[in-house]
Parts: sequence; C-alpha cells; structure tokens
Amino acid sequence: MNYKFADRMGNLKASAIREILKHTQDPSVIPFAAGNPAPEAFPTAEIARISNEILQKNPIAALQYSITEGYTPLRNTLKEQYQAKNIMKDGDDLIIVTGTQQGLDLTTRVLVNEGDTVICEMPSFVGALNAFKAGGANLVGVEMEDDGISIEKLEKALQENKNTKFLYLIPNFQNPSGITMSLEKRKAVYEMALKYGVMIFEDNPYGDLRFTGEHVPNIKTLDTEGIVIYAGSFSKTLSPGMRVAFIIANAAVTQKIVVVKQTNDVHTNIWSQMVCEQFMRENDWDAHIANLCEIYRKKAKLMLDGMDAHFNPIVTHTVPEGGLFIWGTLPEGVDMMKFCTEAVQEHKVAVVPGTAFMPNESDVTRSFRLNFSTPTDEQIVRGIELLGKMTYNLK
Amino acid sequence: MNYKFADRMGNLKASAIREILKHTQDPSVIPFAAGNPAPEAFPTAEIARISNEILQKNPIAALQYSITEGYTPLRNTLKEQYQAKNIMKDGDDLIIVTGTQQGLDLTTRVLVNEGDTVICEMPSFVGALNAFKAGGANLVGVEMEDDGISIEKLEKALQENKNTKFLYLIPNFQNPSGITMSLEKRKAVYEMALKYGVMIFEDNPYGDLRFTGEHVPNIKTLDTEGIVIYAGSFSKTLSPGMRVAFIIANAAVTQKIVVVKQTNDVHTNIWSQMVCEQFMRENDWDAHIANLCEIYRKKAKLMLDGMDAHFNPIVTHTVPEGGLFIWGTLPEGVDMMKFCTEAVQEHKVAVVPGTAFMPNESDVTRSFRLNFSTPTDEQIVRGIELLGKMTYNLK
Repeated sequence: MNYKFADRMGNLKASAIREILKHTQDPSVIPFAAGNPAPEAFPTAEIARISNEILQKNPIAALQYSITEGYTPLRNTLKEQYQAKNIMKDGDDLIIVTGTQQGLDLTTRVLVNEGDTVICEMPSFVGALNAFKAGGANLVGVEMEDDGISIEKLEKALQENKNTKFLYLIPNFQNPSGITMSLEKRKAVYEMALKYGVMIFEDNPYGDLRFTGEHVPNIKTLDTEGIVIYAGSFSKTLSPGMRVAFIIANAAVTQKIVVVKQTNDVHTNIWSQMVCEQFMRENDWDAHIANLCEIYRKKAKLMLDGMDAHFNPIVTHTVPEGGLFIWGTLPEGVDMMKFCTEAVQEHKVAVVPGTAFMPNESDVTRSFRLNFSTPTDEQIVRGIELLGKMTYNLK
Repeated sequence: MNYKFADRMGNLKASAIREILKHTQDPSVIPFAAGNPAPEAFPTAEIARISNEILQKNPIAALQYSITEGYTPLRNTLKEQYQAKNIMKDGDDLIIVTGTQQGLDLTTRVLVNEGDTVICEMPSFVGALNAFKAGGANLVGVEMEDDGISIEKLEKALQENKNTKFLYLIPNFQNPSGITMSLEKRKAVYEMALKYGVMIFEDNPYGDLRFTGEHVPNIKTLDTEGIVIYAGSFSKTLSPGMRVAFIIANAAVTQKIVVVKQTNDVHTNIWSQMVCEQFMRENDWDAHIANLCEIYRKKAKLMLDGMDAHFNPIVTHTVPEGGLFIWGTLPEGVDMMKFCTEAVQEHKVAVVPGTAFMPNESDVTRSFRLNFSTPTDEQIVRGIELLGKMTYNLK
C-alpha cells in the first residue's frame, strides 16, 4: 500500500544524532552520550522489598485498572511535599503522568494550535523539542548565558512571536548545558511571561540533584497568577524505567491534561505508582537524595578534573552545580560534528553533538554534551583522556 | 489567568456518562458498568514470583531507561506467537505500546489530519472514539447487525466520506455490543477497505477470551496488502494496570508510530514488559487462557440465565460468545437514560447508557451495556434481579 501519513509526520525527522547514538548500544563504547542514572543510584533492594510486599498484600490493586489522575496516596504525599516547598499553591492540583515526556506532550496538545510558538532555551532537551514539534509548534530558541536564558533576547522573541503559548525552561542544571538560572533571571522571566501573557513550563527533573552551591527557588514559587506548569519526576531519583512523573499547575490546566491523558494511556502503570508512594513513606527521602547527590558530585568532579587536566584549554566547558551533564564547546573553525563522529568511530567515546539540542536545524553550534552519570569511574577517566588527546588535534 | 487552550480541546467534552460512573466508586453499587478483569482472573502469585525474581536478579534492567520499540525478548516471543497465527506477516513489525489506548492515539496521530474521517462500528469502544476525537478526526458510525457491521451502510459511508483514513473495528466480542463479526463480513470489510484505499485498525483485546462457539480468523490474517493494523493487549489476559499492549502492522507504519511514541512517553514501563515476557516463557499460556475463558463462561452464563429468568422479554439482549460485555436494548418509547439513572440511583446497579458508545452526540440509542467480569457472582444474581424488576415497570 502507498501509505498516506498525516501532514504532522513531516515535522518529525529522524534525528541527526541517531547514527551516533546507535554506537552507544555497543558495550565497548564509553557512554558519555546517554542520560541514564548511575546503576549505583538505584535503591534496588528496597524497591524489590516494597514491590514484593505490594504484590503479596495488595496484588489486585497493583494490577487492575486505575484512575487517570494517578494513585491517590502518591498524589497526597507529593502534594504535601510540594506545598511545603511553596511549589504547589492554592488552586493548584497535582497529577501523575507517564514520565515528564508525557507531561510535555499532553501540555502541548492542551495549549498549542498548529503554528503557535513555543519559546525555549537554546540549546534545550531534545525530547521536549520533539514533543513540541510533534504537536505542531513553531519553535523559537533563545540563547543562554552563564546564568541562564538571555532576558533581552527573550523579550525580543516574545515581541516577534505574538502567538507564543508558553516558555519551556529547565532552570536547574539544564539539559544539555548544565547551566543553572540565577534567581534574578527567574524573577525577570516570570515578570516577562506575565507581561506578554504567556505561560511557563518549568521542567525540573534534576532539581533535587544539587551537589554544590546554594539552592535557588523555583520559578513556580514566584507564581501568584497560575501561569507556571511545574514538572517533577522520579526518573532521576528512583527509576526512569517506571515512567512516573508529576505535573503541578492550576487545576484548570491539570483538568485539561487529565482529559487528554485519558485518551492517551488511560492511566500510568499503577504498580510503579504504588512503589514510589511506599518508598517515600518508608524511607528517609532527604537522606536518599543526599546519597544520590554524593554519587553525582564524585562523578562530576572526576570528569571535570579530567577535563581540566587533559583538555586543550581552547575547548571550554560549563561547570554544573548539579544534574547529569557538562557542555563542552570547541573553538571557532572546528567541525564539531566531525569531532563527535571521530570520537565514537575512532576512539569509541560517544558524546552528543550539540545540534541535537537546537530548536531548529538551521541553528549552529560548536558544542557537545557530556554525561557523567552513565559511565563507570574507569570509563570517565579513560574517555576524558581520549577526548583530551583529540582536543590537541582539532581540525 | 484567562487560559487559552488549543482549539482541539473543544472536541473533548466531559463524558455524558461521567455522572453515572461516579457512582461506581461507591462500593455498595453493583458494578455492571465497569470493564475490569475479574479479580480471580489475575495470576497474582505467579506475577509476584516472577517480579521478585526480576528485581532480585536483574534490577537495573527493570528500572533503567529502555528502548521505544519495546523489550526485545517480549517482542520476539509475541512475534513468534503471531506469526504462527498468520497475524504477523512478512514485512510486518511488532512494537510494544502503553496499552491499546496509546496504540489508538498514536495511530490517529500518524494517519489522521484534522477533519479526516475515521469510520467505526456504532456502537463502539468509548476510549477509541475519544482518541479519534482528540486527534481531530471526523467520526462516522456505521450500524451493526447480529453478525457485525452493516456492509451496505459501510460502503455508503465510504462513498460519502472520501477523506476516510481508516476503519476501526473490534471483530471479536465487540465492546460494547458483544457481537462477533462473521467470516463473510470480515472478508467483505477487507475487500471494501482495499477498494476504497483505506486502512483497518483491528482491535482485538478480547479475542482470546472465547468461551463458546468456533474461532473466526482475524481480518489481519486476510491481509495481503499491508492495510491492517492489529492491536493485541495483556490488559484482559494478564493485567490492565501494567499498561502493556502491542501493535502489529507493516513496518512502514510501526516505524512512524515509534517516532511519535518516543515524543509521547519514550518507552513503556520496562518492568511490566519483563514480567509479561517471563510469564509467557515459564507458563502454559494456552492453559492460562483456557482458565480465563472458563471464569468468564461461568460469569456470562450466570448473567444471561438471570436475564432470561427475570427480564421482561420486551427488553432484548445480545448473547456474546466471549469477551466481557452484554448489550441490552429497551423497547421503543422508553427513556434509556432515565432507566440507567434510576438503576444506579434507586437500585444501586450501575450500567453504562449506550449513548456513551455513540460516535456522535446526536446518535440515538435505546441500549445499555452490562459487564459480567467485574461483579461477584452474588452481585450478578442480585443486580439482574433488580434490573429485571425495573424492566416490568418501564416508562
């Protein structure tokens, strides 16, 4: 048959980085390209214990159909935690989604008409960019500075794109740049969103994983007008394979998301939701998070120290205060894609070319993303040495 | 804030049956309105054993990120099973989805432009209808006869709707009608789809649950041209809470579905996929299915016998050969919605008004859906007696 696909499928092209990521399946390749939590960050014994208890004591509830909004005890636990953080406000609701990815997709479907604009940081998380494109959004990227998105360029983008529906921001340890937005910029971004009548999607998957520096209040804590949609996730704190995340927003917005979620997957895997709830109830969550931060602090330090020791100083990089990623930038005149391709093909070190994180194919970058959570310590040391040698032979 | 939602949200209205379904949360209400597998149909001990083994032996694989297409060993097991059934053909691929609901949603997004037509049986599964509406489809319902969709009316609908992208059909023990499509009609429908150049989405969640009569080959077995998208699910055979289902279609189609799935939820809960795979590998699947069929055969018989004994014969009903549902029809002149409302409010018996399953709000029906898998045997006997009394006092 000559298949006639929907026009929107034209928005979704095979990713330019797919070829490079293919190599990451090869176990002999050093995996700086992934974004997986470290194996030692999974509390596997405790999850196994809880899961077994649920399936022994309450199996039907864990295996039967459930409600779209999410498992009520988990929602209540999270509501309490996020009310205490001033992220969940009066008039807000909290719903469970099948990973933040689903939250991004559903939010786009709820807010964006074909051709409406979504403004994002440039670079930004490729999964979010693809969800926006799949939803027919016009993507506009705004350049980042050391302390977050450029406020001047953001205002220009808002002036030039009157059909903007929301800003997509990852204020903490951004993916891919590792940059944290300053409090001043968070305030400025919020005020600008209010001024131009657009919403903000604040994606905070890494927020808990701060291993140095001072906590910066989330944009959602500033939100008196109900314009911020906040996304949190268990993917980096407990398990990404479970696909459990949550959205906090004004109830008028979450109600719409629930309506679309029902048509999308009815509800999120209920066993996983029960495991998350019981884990939070029976464990010291703050101590668990502190343990993760210590794991990632060490790994980040190992990679950053290696880069300082082995990289040609003409290659610059960010110094993240948390999260999973470092953003390296090659000097002018160097072919970044060639560098990344050689790294994986000749030296078996996989990094992600920065183009993957650009809102539009025409956006140019000389940067690449390094991940320190997935590789072992030995892989970090060896991989950085190999990349370091490459930086002294740049073409 | 004065929220501006996307235009497509106007397609999704709060369900007319929501009020009635609210009562089903009340444990004192007899649940003929649900579609849940019977509690005794869950192999809970075996799932607990397998899950525990996975989380002891291979926890990181069960909790880490995975690939969008699905868990390879599960896909391979299913491919083998469905090749043997002649449902999976040369050129086809099989991918895992987060419940058939996601398969319906993703297929709509892959195939349907705003305003394109999807033709479905009338009545049909409300979750599918909502997924099509959410995707901007124009829904056209075609009346059913005792042996499935009316072929004459289907051809008329195809002639009148040149922009039809696919037919949505549940040939086995249809939800909500319980009707099974005859082999002759399956052949006729397939030929007609070929003639008019449209695809078929064959939804088969109940196909394994035949408790009487002879197996009828699936439409997909007739498919020489790659126009049938087949959906199977573990929701009725193992656990709906796991949200694991699968799509079999020409690889050109599954590739597109995978691209959209990646933007939607990255991948399906991997622990659940591993449990499904190991359950199929270590258990006699056919014996497991035979056990389920026996459970539902008894429950269906209990309900049908009760209806024959207690219902006023002016109320007719289907006699399903499998699945979970019976479709009752009130005589002309009776207010069906009033009947359903009184049933739940005055007699605490919840059934679903047939309007819930109509493609368009203007479609009229005097029918209602009864489910025999969710209630206990005692609830079936008592509930049918109560409804039976009502059928002698119809207004």
